[in-house]
Amino acid sequence: MKDNVAVGLLGVGVVGSGVINLIEKHQEKLAHQLGCGVHVKSALVRNLDKQRDTGADMNGTMLTTDPDAVLGDPEIDVVVEVMGGIDEAREVILKAFKAKKHVVTANKDLVALHGGELHEAAERNKCDFYYEASVAGGIPILRGITDGFASDHIEQLMGIVNGTTNYIMTKMNQEGLSYEAALQEAQERGFAEADPASDVEGLDAARKMAILARLAFSTYIDLEDVEVTGIKDIDIADLQYSDSLGFTMKLIGFANFDGTQVEVNVQPVLISKQHPLADVKNEYNAVYVYGEAIGEAMFYGAGAGSMPTASAVISDVVTVIKNMHRGVTGGQFVEPRFKKRLKSDEQRFGEYYFRVHATDEAGVFSRISSLFNELDISFKQILQNPSEDDDVAEIVVITHRTSLHNMQKALEELKNLEQVKAIKSFYKVEGDADA
Amino acid sequence: MKDNVAVGLLGVGVVGSGVINLIEKHQEKLAHQLGCGVHVKSALVRNLDKQRDTGADMNGTMLTTDPDAVLGDPEIDVVVEVMGGIDEAREVILKAFKAKKHVVTANKDLVALHGGELHEAAERNKCDFYYEASVAGGIPILRGITDGFASDHIEQLMGIVNGTTNYIMTKMNQEGLSYEAALQEAQERGFAEADPASDVEGLDAARKMAILARLAFSTYIDLEDVEVTGIKDIDIADLQYSDSLGFTMKLIGFANFDGTQVEVNVQPVLISKQHPLADVKNEYNAVYVYGEAIGEAMFYGAGAGSMPTASAVISDVVTVIKNMHRGVTGGQFVEPRFKKRLKSDEQRFGEYYFRVHATDEAGVFSRISSLFNELDISFKQILQNPSEDDDVAEIVVITHRTSLHNMQKALEELKNLEQVKAIKSFYKVEGDADA
Repeated sequence: MKDNVAVGLLGVGVVGSGVINLIEKHQEKLAHQLGCGVHVKSALVRNLDKQRDTGADMNGTMLTTDPDAVLGDPEIDVVVEVMGGIDEAREVILKAFKAKKHVVTANKDLVALHGGELHEAAERNKCDFYYEASVAGGIPILRGITDGFASDHIEQLMGIVNGTTNYIMTKMNQEGLSYEAALQEAQERGFAEADPASDVEGLDAARKMAILARLAFSTYIDLEDVEVTGIKDIDIADLQYSDSLGFTMKLIGFANFDGTQVEVNVQPVLISKQHPLADVKNEYNAVYVYGEAIGEAMFYGAGAGSMPTASAVISDVVTVIKNMHRGVTGGQFVEPRFKKRLKSDEQRFGEYYFRVHATDEAGVFSRISSLFNELDISFKQILQNPSEDDDVAEIVVITHRTSLHNMQKALEELKNLEQVKAIKSFYKVEGDADA
Repeated sequence: MKDNVAVGLLGVGVVGSGVINLIEKHQEKLAHQLGCGVHVKSALVRNLDKQRDTGADMNGTMLTTDPDAVLGDPEIDVVVEVMGGIDEAREVILKAFKAKKHVVTANKDLVALHGGELHEAAERNKCDFYYEASVAGGIPILRGITDGFASDHIEQLMGIVNGTTNYIMTKMNQEGLSYEAALQEAQERGFAEADPASDVEGLDAARKMAILARLAFSTYIDLEDVEVTGIKDIDIADLQYSDSLGFTMKLIGFANFDGTQVEVNVQPVLISKQHPLADVKNEYNAVYVYGEAIGEAMFYGAGAGSMPTASAVISDVVTVIKNMHRGVTGGQFVEPRFKKRLKSDEQRFGEYYFRVHATDEAGVFSRISSLFNELDISFKQILQNPSEDDDVAEIVVITHRTSLHNMQKALEELKNLEQVKAIKSFYKVEGDADA
């Protein structure tokens, strides 16, 4: 057993700085748990001259611009990849495994795209590969799913796994801000990037859902299997109707598995105010898990940030070092149990919300409801208001449970009704308003 | 590696039946994860003739009234203790360790009282000892704390860890029921026992908080170190005032640690409606963890019930079997890092709520506030109402932060004020009403 395990760090940005800081700060706690020290021996950076404030003494850490100075160092056992990006990160991680180094990463893009390949490379080289920090920052959700639910069948996952969009939607819901105003506030407060595309279009959430679904359901899910709708086109009117019907609108990652087939998507959803996810506000993240035996469970916390993410990275480093001491690195990974089978739209069920503008004349609502009735879709909640335009009625409906296929067919026919001016919106609904 | 690991079950009650059911039902998932089968070979019961409906085929399981038929069976590697009680359970577990069997238990009373002794016996015999199910049923909170926060300093834990009292208080809060009426409803719906004493007096929660605090702070906490106040004496008037001030009253287990000294207690607390714990309703449990690096995190789910608890038990059995396969059983336990040092009342700080009845005359409030002022306690929120009795004013105050010692001194002096008729209530406050 080594006296002091050397870690090689790839990247000293927001998360990397946190890793250096926490490892220095918590030397005593780490030494107590592990029976040995841990130190960051060297760190790969792009620019040697840049000023860095990690809040910790960097004298002990050699900075280098050469990946091989880290990967080729025989003293280094654990490589922490927090440089971000995809191709270069993939290459250095594969190189690290070849050099028999264990790898911990916070890189969700990489794991979502190349998780399978990286796991296989790790196994081949009897190395550990962990990525707790890649989903929901400091929340120990991957451990929770793989260890805590080991004997349960997870039926469903719902996640608020993107802090930026949850912050924006909280402001839109609570303060009635428009999407643009809420985005601007998020940017000013550091919760959204200058280019917010990957967050607000739902791609970041999709990557995390692919990782979660893969672990929860033991089947490979590719990123392109995740259907994504972002939040940019949300109309404040739908937030107000949601509220008055007993719901809150949130960007929700949804995954379910019936034992054979799987469905994974990210979309704005009307979620019942009674549902635990409805209370997850601002930049916070949460993952709701429904297990056949356990029933409802939820994991809540900070989904991003230097310290929460670094803390998740180091919890993986601790696991790796414990495995090293016990001589059991590698071999954690279990091949997925199920072949990937995606649900078709006929096999996807839900309750749905839609809002239409129709001519304001007698019998219109009855015409609409009989159209749905013919497709066996019945209505659960209905609101009808005269719209600002005097000749137009605004009709809001929440349906009972039906297939997505059926619902899409109904909307198609609705569009062709002479009395219907426009289908303004269409969203999925989760939970009962008065549960 | 064995083809099929034999489990010995001690007790086939609510949780034991769930264990048998889940192990049978999830054979395939368990075999896939473990690379071997798992079966319940024999089970200790009190009465062989009792009808049991485990929802599973019991033919494969031998029932016995003799503990030694389980503990003495060389084929059995893992013993699951779900018989409950303390002395007998302690004895059989110690015997199991002597026979080199790993032990998984759901017995919070036992772990809270004898956890240290049992851990030592496990270590001596190189056996595993796990008890995830002992706190918060199916929620993987013990793993979350020990593994997920491995590199963080946990500063504070707050837990709704007793479903019965949370159900009762939810009904009192939401429907204005009296304590007695809410208890009766809880009993009718199966959320409270016929003799609810250990729940409503806070003892059950205290046991769980002792276990949580021990793991989170790496120091021994004895059950008698946990200060306990139950919910029986809660006046509906205080729930109403809490509500109008922006708080919800809940029975909260509280533990904090400043790096040297520790405080653990269970008491009714006014918790801000903005706090994630305020939304935990009915029989649900949740543990809120504040880590220096991670910040806020919360684990939510079903805190009891046959299936959730059995699922947590089996997740421990899975961990044990994985350890067996890798040859690393025993050695998980780490001696507490810190000597136990409890905070005195001078070192315990908080904001406090109190309600007094005073004579309804000019200058009374000013007299009260100057009394507090002399002790450096200032007021944050104040409500004053004429009481039903015309000559009496009801005064409700939430203070700014002060020491418990100081606060108790102030209440003592208040009691002696001529104008004060009665101190009706006194509670701790967590969080800001308008955070």
